[in-house]
Amino acid sequence: MTPSASSVRFTGWGSYIPEVIVKNSDFAQHDFYNPDQSKLDAPAEVVVRKFKAITGIEERRYVSNDLDASDIGAIAAKRAIEKSGIDPETLDMIIVAHNFGNVRSGTIQTDILPGLSARIKHTLGIHNPDCIAYDILFGCPGWLQGVIQAYQYIKGGFAQKILVVGTETLSRVLDIYDRDSMIFADGAGATVIEASEGSGGILSTAARTYSVDEAMYLSLGASHLPEADPNIRYIKMKGRKIYEFALSKVPEAMKMCLDKSGVSIDQIKKVLIHQANEKMDEAIIHRFYELFGMKKAPDGVMPMSIHKLGNSSVGTIPTLFDMIARGELVNHQFNPGDHIMLASVGAGMHINAVLYRF
Amino acid sequence: MTPSASSVRFTGWGSYIPEVIVKNSDFAQHDFYNPDQSKLDAPAEVVVRKFKAITGIEERRYVSNDLDASDIGAIAAKRAIEKSGIDPETLDMIIVAHNFGNVRSGTIQTDILPGLSARIKHTLGIHNPDCIAYDILFGCPGWLQGVIQAYQYIKGGFAQKILVVGTETLSRVLDIYDRDSMIFADGAGATVIEASEGSGGILSTAARTYSVDEAMYLSLGASHLPEADPNIRYIKMKGRKIYEFALSKVPEAMKMCLDKSGVSIDQIKKVLIHQANEKMDEAIIHRFYELFGMKKAPDGVMPMSIHKLGNSSVGTIPTLFDMIARGELVNHQFNPGDHIMLASVGAGMHINAVLYRF
Repeated sequence: MTPSASSVRFTGWGSYIPEVIVKNSDFAQHDFYNPDQSKLDAPAEVVVRKFKAITGIEERRYVSNDLDASDIGAIAAKRAIEKSGIDPETLDMIIVAHNFGNVRSGTIQTDILPGLSARIKHTLGIHNPDCIAYDILFGCPGWLQGVIQAYQYIKGGFAQKILVVGTETLSRVLDIYDRDSMIFADGAGATVIEASEGSGGILSTAARTYSVDEAMYLSLGASHLPEADPNIRYIKMKGRKIYEFALSKVPEAMKMCLDKSGVSIDQIKKVLIHQANEKMDEAIIHRFYELFGMKKAPDGVMPMSIHKLGNSSVGTIPTLFDMIARGELVNHQFNPGDHIMLASVGAGMHINAVLYRF
Repeated sequence: MTPSASSVRFTGWGSYIPEVIVKNSDFAQHDFYNPDQSKLDAPAEVVVRKFKAITGIEERRYVSNDLDASDIGAIAAKRAIEKSGIDPETLDMIIVAHNFGNVRSGTIQTDILPGLSARIKHTLGIHNPDCIAYDILFGCPGWLQGVIQAYQYIKGGFAQKILVVGTETLSRVLDIYDRDSMIFADGAGATVIEASEGSGGILSTAARTYSVDEAMYLSLGASHLPEADPNIRYIKMKGRKIYEFALSKVPEAMKMCLDKSGVSIDQIKKVLIHQANEKMDEAIIHRFYELFGMKKAPDGVMPMSIHKLGNSSVGTIPTLFDMIARGELVNHQFNPGDHIMLASVGAGMHINAVLYRF
């Protein structure tokens, strides 16, 4: 146990954006079925157009057949370590968030033996046995929860340098007969977090778990195709319930986080929110600002990547962070002294938020 | 963030021992195959006899078809909460360790959406959203790593009361054509850990991850049966490599833990080690005492449950702890002031140890 750090900062970031581009038009020939296995009345092209209007998604990325979640997580991790400039052997921990482990192309079986963190440590070639690698499952907010855990270990004096990775290949677990399959994407992002001198860095955190009524809002279920094997199960979501839940509970958790920090709402320069669904994200952020007596969120405060990248679960926020930090997202940047909020919601149902100052 | 706790103690414990008893004789009619898919030369009854001599296992427990890992984890959790006497709504966290999530009877697909911690929180009926539930994957040492994480959160002032559960249904992922399948069992254990006054409780911890050469010592692999579908994969282990690794590295980590505590080797009353294999566990513990200049481990220092319960991965240590604490293991008990060590090793490869004073 070392002395408590005065601040906890992101010192490196990286991401992996998969190479296979799947456009909405690629879904226009699909046969979609309802949850009751009846065929959708509307033609697929109409379904796809409505989908775009709600989610904002125009295209999404899938990994190539030779890559699994741990592979792309390791690429993102390597980039984050390089950016930080640290010797990877000096890492105290590797925390990896995901929801399905590795699912090999052409199979449906989750492989989490060993955990992805051990595989990523292996791929990075880190020998130091005191670099402890573990996986966390916390739904889509898993990467951000890894950040919160890293903050707590560093603040408590139990670690100095932690790599937090989020990696997911949802393309391997989607039911192509379900129109929700158009939401899901693959991706990975990673961040190196270190004990630092001075002020700034992570200022406050919040996390919540709602599992009495909400536990099965995202879960595995049989294909919507009537003749499918019911024992082979895919990612399924109760979209309407998730929307209502998120709109009610996410702004509240964001407010808890901001209130703890002592920072005022008008000091926030950017809100990086889990890229789940554009309309939902917009509704959440407006409600957040309404909680502080404002009519709506300021223009340009919420950078989005969902249009081109879809929803890669734990991958969205660290990828978005990396894109902005590297100047790859038009009209968005981070400047010294900027306050940003990161927030997420997903299977569990879990919610979390972090306030960060550059 | 609350003031740092002066001590961190186990205040409740519980376990679930599955009801289906599978005896070694039940395997004596099996057809066993080698990893190269050739048939084993020896008759199954000879294989079973040798197995017993090495592992110590006479019988093991499987869950009934209607139960999954999250179900038995919730039963153990409920017992631990009852024993502690706390109001479950006052828990700050629920940490659940496993390796395969829920695998329904008759299927091979891991279900970790949502994570088992959210399902267990659901089953316990805990409404408090500030009780954060997450899953940790850390191989067989996952439950003990959850304990270490709980200790760090409490010591750091981020939590006061944490429930740590280990639950596993290895019967659902074993290849019956592989003789190693005889090792694996089902089970769950849970512990409530609280910030406490006074001294004692968790005195020191150690954890290590070896993933350069060791990452795939335990992993998924195809059935040993020649005609089996290679895309359906089961738990597979490199027994010889694990034995050599564990014998070299586990005593070292146990020594690290003891050295940090300032407690002397002769003060240790019990060593609760992951019930992996009797001969391996005996070799580890003798080597541990040898590191302190002793010829061998004292008689009676290492309670074992493997003979009747097999290896339930994350379930073994919390179950063994619960059995001793409740006076159910002949010739073993915990008394006030006793020092005990908990130690584990498993897929990753991960190792950890905790020194505890009652």
